[in-house]
Amino acid sequence: MEDRLKEDIIASGRFGREPEHPVDAFEKLDPDKGVTRPTGSSANMKTRTYAVEKMKEAGLDVRVDAVGNIFGRKDGINPDAGAVMCGSHLDSVINGGQFDGALGVFSAIEAVRRLEDEGYKNMRPIEVVVFTGEEGSAFGITLLGSSTLIGKISYEEAFARRDPKGRTLQEALEYMEYKGDFFMDLDTVAYFVELHIEQGPVLFNEKIPVGIVENIAGIAWIYATIKGVGNHAGTTPMKMRRDALSAAADIVKYVEKRANEMVDRLGSATVGTVGKLNVYPNGTNIVPGRVELGIDIRDVVSENMESLKQDVSAALKDLEQKYGVSVDITIPTTHSPEPLFKEVIDVIEKSAREANIRSMRMNSGAGHDSQNIAKRVKTGMIFVPSVGGISHAPTEWTEWGDIENGVQVLTRTLRNLTQIPEGKVLENNDSVQGSV
Amino acid sequence: MEDRLKEDIIASGRFGREPEHPVDAFEKLDPDKGVTRPTGSSANMKTRTYAVEKMKEAGLDVRVDAVGNIFGRKDGINPDAGAVMCGSHLDSVINGGQFDGALGVFSAIEAVRRLEDEGYKNMRPIEVVVFTGEEGSAFGITLLGSSTLIGKISYEEAFARRDPKGRTLQEALEYMEYKGDFFMDLDTVAYFVELHIEQGPVLFNEKIPVGIVENIAGIAWIYATIKGVGNHAGTTPMKMRRDALSAAADIVKYVEKRANEMVDRLGSATVGTVGKLNVYPNGTNIVPGRVELGIDIRDVVSENMESLKQDVSAALKDLEQKYGVSVDITIPTTHSPEPLFKEVIDVIEKSAREANIRSMRMNSGAGHDSQNIAKRVKTGMIFVPSVGGISHAPTEWTEWGDIENGVQVLTRTLRNLTQIPEGKVLENNDSVQGSV
Repeated sequence: MEDRLKEDIIASGRFGREPEHPVDAFEKLDPDKGVTRPTGSSANMKTRTYAVEKMKEAGLDVRVDAVGNIFGRKDGINPDAGAVMCGSHLDSVINGGQFDGALGVFSAIEAVRRLEDEGYKNMRPIEVVVFTGEEGSAFGITLLGSSTLIGKISYEEAFARRDPKGRTLQEALEYMEYKGDFFMDLDTVAYFVELHIEQGPVLFNEKIPVGIVENIAGIAWIYATIKGVGNHAGTTPMKMRRDALSAAADIVKYVEKRANEMVDRLGSATVGTVGKLNVYPNGTNIVPGRVELGIDIRDVVSENMESLKQDVSAALKDLEQKYGVSVDITIPTTHSPEPLFKEVIDVIEKSAREANIRSMRMNSGAGHDSQNIAKRVKTGMIFVPSVGGISHAPTEWTEWGDIENGVQVLTRTLRNLTQIPEGKVLENNDSVQGSV
Repeated sequence: MEDRLKEDIIASGRFGREPEHPVDAFEKLDPDKGVTRPTGSSANMKTRTYAVEKMKEAGLDVRVDAVGNIFGRKDGINPDAGAVMCGSHLDSVINGGQFDGALGVFSAIEAVRRLEDEGYKNMRPIEVVVFTGEEGSAFGITLLGSSTLIGKISYEEAFARRDPKGRTLQEALEYMEYKGDFFMDLDTVAYFVELHIEQGPVLFNEKIPVGIVENIAGIAWIYATIKGVGNHAGTTPMKMRRDALSAAADIVKYVEKRANEMVDRLGSATVGTVGKLNVYPNGTNIVPGRVELGIDIRDVVSENMESLKQDVSAALKDLEQKYGVSVDITIPTTHSPEPLFKEVIDVIEKSAREANIRSMRMNSGAGHDSQNIAKRVKTGMIFVPSVGGISHAPTEWTEWGDIENGVQVLTRTLRNLTQIPEGKVLENNDSVQGSV
């Protein structure tokens, strides 16, 4: 691969490892380890500025919108045709890796550079995009920039959100000098493609360099509090207990078993996880009186997700009879699954074939700005392998060879999408939902 | 019952509900709720001083030993005969109840007063005792005073222990003005009886006012750390997980199931509890990578306790194969079961019959100073019911009528034990271990 993309990733990956974040909460971390550049940090600012320089060097016309989303436009032969948008985000989780998000931004810039090097003249305009606050590590809401862009949340609501230091998004954007006055109209965009690390182990295990995302999974969370009777572990006979942890353990096993059954029976991409479990009072010699559970359920098929959510809720309620405990259930947030677009998927698949790079269709268990943009624009995603399936951690890694494969597929995808004549009636505007 | 014992308990129960503890760690608590008087607190000091006044009023000769244990002696007709010791402790857990410990001390004083009122002349001397630091709420070791008394830990070791504020026991005793220079020689003591709340639900559920303890359960703790692979809950397929919490849930169910099986099969008093469970990183959307467990195993029969301990350790190790996790096991401390003495048990039972109060033999699942003293002195324990089996909590309660029943049995027990001629060969010096 050409050195300039590798250089961009390594250079940007340095920002956020320095001990200079203005938000106290982030200063506790070992700066030698992961990448920490939440929206509003000086590290986030420096990464943005680095990317903007690279966009300008690549001949892009850079504008910043009101919530800090950055757009770098390369006009097309037909400047009024719907653009092909391409990009990702530059913010990170606390102590994350250098590829998550940044790879999608710098790959898009690299694809533009390669098309330029090839002397390719794009019919449709190209818009390289950097979305603000994808991870939610500063302002407590994921997909902040793309959510504002599609009107899922209002600009006022976005501006007013606060980070752990108490700054509003507006103040954080002003601090970074990324509070723009541009407003992107998504009606001027025909297609969106995001290249991203998979964050899971599928491509790595299957040894396939490129994944083409068909669906982004929906997410349902269940918070449950199980109240039993806390008591002396020595003096409370086994038959006289109402042990909240024993009841909770049933749910841990149930969530795993039911999700596995669905995978086996339906061939579905269902995942069910009890990721959070707090015991009270949590003393070795005290029968647990109360347990709090955080349960994560995902599927690319709405019906599967709802079915598992309801089964788990019912199993939680059944504990009351079985263990003499009381159970409170809260469903904090549910995001429906988002299917991506067959036409874009087909173009990506064709592009991979042209580049002689093996690909497979797959689903995304993680959330991405693509799931927002797909509500307004024909959207596809390209995944590259995560070594060991690890992300959101300092050990997040993608091999440089896999990155090169991904960029080649992305470059050809941009070439192919920008050639689609304006006004062409696509064969099938339906999503692929139901085909999984 | 006579009002003076009730008055003593209510008066002493007020100390430690006031917001005046010198140790910061205790000041966070709501002083209107539980009783908090760890060793070295001003509340503990005031309770001691109240008890000493009552001892002196009852004609007892009060001495304080080097670790703050208090002894109040009433000489016998035969002052050289082995004494009958009787008492408990005045320290408390954080946010506990007013009966745990204090009841045993003030009941002993009340028994002495009643014998005096009856004009009874005791052949053997009586020693009312207040042990230092039974709960371990300040100095991190339970049964501190009695452990020093029997030589289980040295005086130097005891003096050097530190509370959460960093004070040594020596400094804490000096602060309370309870650092004495007396050394009790347990060879001068023939019998020990401790009246205590049961702290469990057995007497309350069986509606029997007095329990006579045959064995104090042994305690084995197991700390285990299960290491799996922490990962993204959305992107990690069910079949590719090494979920540490799923593995831990098996152990929660196993400990409960095996303890229940032993109770059912052996009729044993086995209890097994996973009281502590910490999940890392403990995010709803992250597959748990690590779980720490604190497991408490108790039985009055050594073999049962060891058997369950080994079964649980083996089950923990089996997780490695089954889930691809690694398991580290630490056994921090094991206290062997302590049988109490048939002769004393028989005397207590006879005393209950004389008082026309129903009693039952039972075991103690909680630890008590009696289990230390029983290593040197013929020891018995009297239990009174805990409402709902609750202790170590502000809601700890024992009905005044049950306290009266307990004191009557204790008073007759003191009378009967002090009459046993010095040098009498007891019928059976063996413990009751094995009879349970």
